[in-house]
Amino acid sequence: MAIWPLLLLSAICPLFSSAITTTNKPPAFPSSFIHPQQLRSSLSTKTNKLYEEKFFTQILDHFNYNPQSYHTFQQRYLINDKHWGGPKNNSPVFVYTGNEGDIEWFAQNTGFMFETAPHFKALLVFIEHRFYGKSMPFGGSKETAYSNSSTLGYLSSTQALADYATLILDLKKNLTATDSPVVVFGGSYGGMLAAWFRLKYPHIAVGALASSAPILNFDNITSPFSFNNIITQDFRSESENCYKVIKRSWQEIDDTAAKPRGLEILRKSFRICSNYVGAGALQGWLSSAYTYAAMTDYPTPSNFLSPLPAYPVKQMCKAIDDPKTGNITFEKLYGAANIFYNHTGDAKCFDLIDNSDPHGLGGWSWQACTEMILLTDGSAEDSMFPASNYSYNDRVESCKYGYNIEPRPTWIPTEFGAHNIHRVLKRFGSNIIFFNGLRDPWSGGGVLKDISKSLVAIVAKEGAHHVDLRFSTKEDPNWLQHVRKTEVQIISKWLSQYYHDLADSSHY
Amino acid sequence: MAIWPLLLLSAICPLFSSAITTTNKPPAFPSSFIHPQQLRSSLSTKTNKLYEEKFFTQILDHFNYNPQSYHTFQQRYLINDKHWGGPKNNSPVFVYTGNEGDIEWFAQNTGFMFETAPHFKALLVFIEHRFYGKSMPFGGSKETAYSNSSTLGYLSSTQALADYATLILDLKKNLTATDSPVVVFGGSYGGMLAAWFRLKYPHIAVGALASSAPILNFDNITSPFSFNNIITQDFRSESENCYKVIKRSWQEIDDTAAKPRGLEILRKSFRICSNYVGAGALQGWLSSAYTYAAMTDYPTPSNFLSPLPAYPVKQMCKAIDDPKTGNITFEKLYGAANIFYNHTGDAKCFDLIDNSDPHGLGGWSWQACTEMILLTDGSAEDSMFPASNYSYNDRVESCKYGYNIEPRPTWIPTEFGAHNIHRVLKRFGSNIIFFNGLRDPWSGGGVLKDISKSLVAIVAKEGAHHVDLRFSTKEDPNWLQHVRKTEVQIISKWLSQYYHDLADSSHY
Repeated sequence: MAIWPLLLLSAICPLFSSAITTTNKPPAFPSSFIHPQQLRSSLSTKTNKLYEEKFFTQILDHFNYNPQSYHTFQQRYLINDKHWGGPKNNSPVFVYTGNEGDIEWFAQNTGFMFETAPHFKALLVFIEHRFYGKSMPFGGSKETAYSNSSTLGYLSSTQALADYATLILDLKKNLTATDSPVVVFGGSYGGMLAAWFRLKYPHIAVGALASSAPILNFDNITSPFSFNNIITQDFRSESENCYKVIKRSWQEIDDTAAKPRGLEILRKSFRICSNYVGAGALQGWLSSAYTYAAMTDYPTPSNFLSPLPAYPVKQMCKAIDDPKTGNITFEKLYGAANIFYNHTGDAKCFDLIDNSDPHGLGGWSWQACTEMILLTDGSAEDSMFPASNYSYNDRVESCKYGYNIEPRPTWIPTEFGAHNIHRVLKRFGSNIIFFNGLRDPWSGGGVLKDISKSLVAIVAKEGAHHVDLRFSTKEDPNWLQHVRKTEVQIISKWLSQYYHDLADSSHY
Repeated sequence: MAIWPLLLLSAICPLFSSAITTTNKPPAFPSSFIHPQQLRSSLSTKTNKLYEEKFFTQILDHFNYNPQSYHTFQQRYLINDKHWGGPKNNSPVFVYTGNEGDIEWFAQNTGFMFETAPHFKALLVFIEHRFYGKSMPFGGSKETAYSNSSTLGYLSSTQALADYATLILDLKKNLTATDSPVVVFGGSYGGMLAAWFRLKYPHIAVGALASSAPILNFDNITSPFSFNNIITQDFRSESENCYKVIKRSWQEIDDTAAKPRGLEILRKSFRICSNYVGAGALQGWLSSAYTYAAMTDYPTPSNFLSPLPAYPVKQMCKAIDDPKTGNITFEKLYGAANIFYNHTGDAKCFDLIDNSDPHGLGGWSWQACTEMILLTDGSAEDSMFPASNYSYNDRVESCKYGYNIEPRPTWIPTEFGAHNIHRVLKRFGSNIIFFNGLRDPWSGGGVLKDISKSLVAIVAKEGAHHVDLRFSTKEDPNWLQHVRKTEVQIISKWLSQYYHDLADSSHY
């Protein structure tokens, strides 16, 4: 089952689904996964009051000067000045460094910024990443921007960071707020961008809250097995039986599929729509449910990737362990899948080959084929997934097939650093919070230990993917309240120090 | 005389001299000036033993992923491992971050690295900047690489820094020296690159010696008058008469040129070859002599931009003050010019429109028209040059004329920071030495005060343009010996700290 690792993370690839088979799609960043048929849209008209939508004329290429580089595009950002103390007070600007999707989706899942704005009197700005949402170069249409590698070529992390730098400086100038300190925030890939932004543009951001940012998950710095190991741990921590049922199920699915009328048995067992195609798709669909349940194993009901109950991993294992299902593996798995894919109970059947992309996340496939060579695809012997090694060659092959492009796997560590990060940054840089929840499979690639006094790691044993950034609820556990309180204290310290230095700067 | 400021720095523009008139050439970085007819080549066969020439297959575009970006070119570097302690001892690698010209020229004028290599057991590497010397993309020929803005577009500082990062990591890997610390060195634009390299790539360089790097000379951060003010101060410090003679001479040249047979008088007065064309060219030729004499006002005889005696400014003022020349201004100026342009005494006549470029510095015109919008072109009322304001519009116009390109004047401060540098870097970054000599006109755009304990400014009142990096001589004054000793001590400290952290890193 050498194809398994890519299957695992291949659930979304809407633009190239016709060109890339199920078995060699380029892997997507898991946060970019969503099963639309179960999605209760979070973009309600009510929440639109959270911000105003604006556009900035952005340069296409910051690093070259050929005629093409001078082209511009309209970059979207969302702004909320309700609580801002204004330029006279040099009140701060909180900027979300957008990741691989529609910026509204991220804004609406980053309640931490809205909830702390009144305390800090902060202006809120959420900047959309180029090539996502409405921020499309080459005329504004996704079809044109994504049409080939000559246009998609401008989709890169360094260009995105330079976009943020350019937009922030221009915005501050227009607001006559050049002395207002900027703090950047981001989760997942957005968290990587936030951390890198503070490292590369310290003159623009005084600090960064990088939540669940797997900046070490490159070039074999952290283990390619850690991602699946953590998912395994999550399920195994709920019950040994749950783990065992899942672990043995892959073979059972294969065996059933090989029988006469086996696919029909599978289709009926999992209430799959009549367009169902094969065992691999079912395995991918199930493993995605486990993976994203682990990522979003939040302590309260949520609707980030999918509408979910509190502690979805626990609920899925409960379904698997349910004595009513006896020894019938598929009934157990169906119960678990139903929790992830049908928490609302509305689904009539499950469509395994739905390629719609409501949050506009499809560009990640390109990033995963160029520079974002995140290592997640290994499964150890005791993994709940079939054992397999990470294979860079598989990635190369699928990227060649999908985009006719060769990845640059060492570029991210070359540009941003990652090897020996504790040694390198011990005496360089300041003011970054690295938050990680250890239930989150991505935490294996995160910074889990303090680097210095002001480059700090906040680790929550019970936490999942950027849970700290979510809107608070009355049911939030103490540890989560404590994490957010600590983050507010640290950010306060950065700002105090900034204002102190600002007052002091007449001496220079 | 609104055209004067551009004239002043327009002495070299070999590739576009036919397209750009004398009055609106884009300004060149003064270090890129050389009058070849007086140059005694420093590239002697003897000195070639200093290093071995090698080539690295470098990627054309680090920041984009379109098909063109994958093209490669051969980047030259020079290497000397004579004193290297080797990978087993993690002995250091000293890298010169090449600037706008043939890397051999810079290597041969950076004796400091050769002279300190035995003490540090350092490997020496001098990397040539893309689009200079032998490091030409697009097939290796300068004619092709410089042919239009589609090819020249890839000549930028960010690409150059990424080249250095990529080459250094690859070289260390090949030498199995991944734990050897790297220190970067550079003078002038190379010094800017060294400082920026440490700021942007702290994971690759443990420290930087940035000599005479005017990183603040952008976006009105430092005064556009400082450059000409310092030249004025240099000459005025030698004698008030010297200053006055030069100051009034510009009008005298104009008046003479306007007379019947006036140009012939000027031609004879200055022993100009028969192809002489006008008053403006003579004024540019003279002001270049003053400017480059100020830059290279070294305490010992030198041959960097031109063969010169020790303290050339003093010598030129001596010629101007020479009682033998009575009140004949042109005779006085001729005496001064003869020191700068004809120290060897070989010149039969002076060719004002010689556009040859022995050090391959012509690409600077492109850089000065895209991102390197250094502000040097203002002259105050009491300047020895005719008073004028810096005009950004003049720059725009000349760049449009020469390259049909629009500068991006805020890009360098956006990408690298410059505003409020003391406040920004007080709590961020470490291990940079900013050397400046106050006789150097570029020192007005340099970092002249310590930023923090490890971001330090070394200022030599008597020093000129990156004098600290030059080969030492027996005649070096005490202050210069002291500067170099201090630099060695600081670099030693960086390395000790690195080795301490390396030994300690098993705890991480």
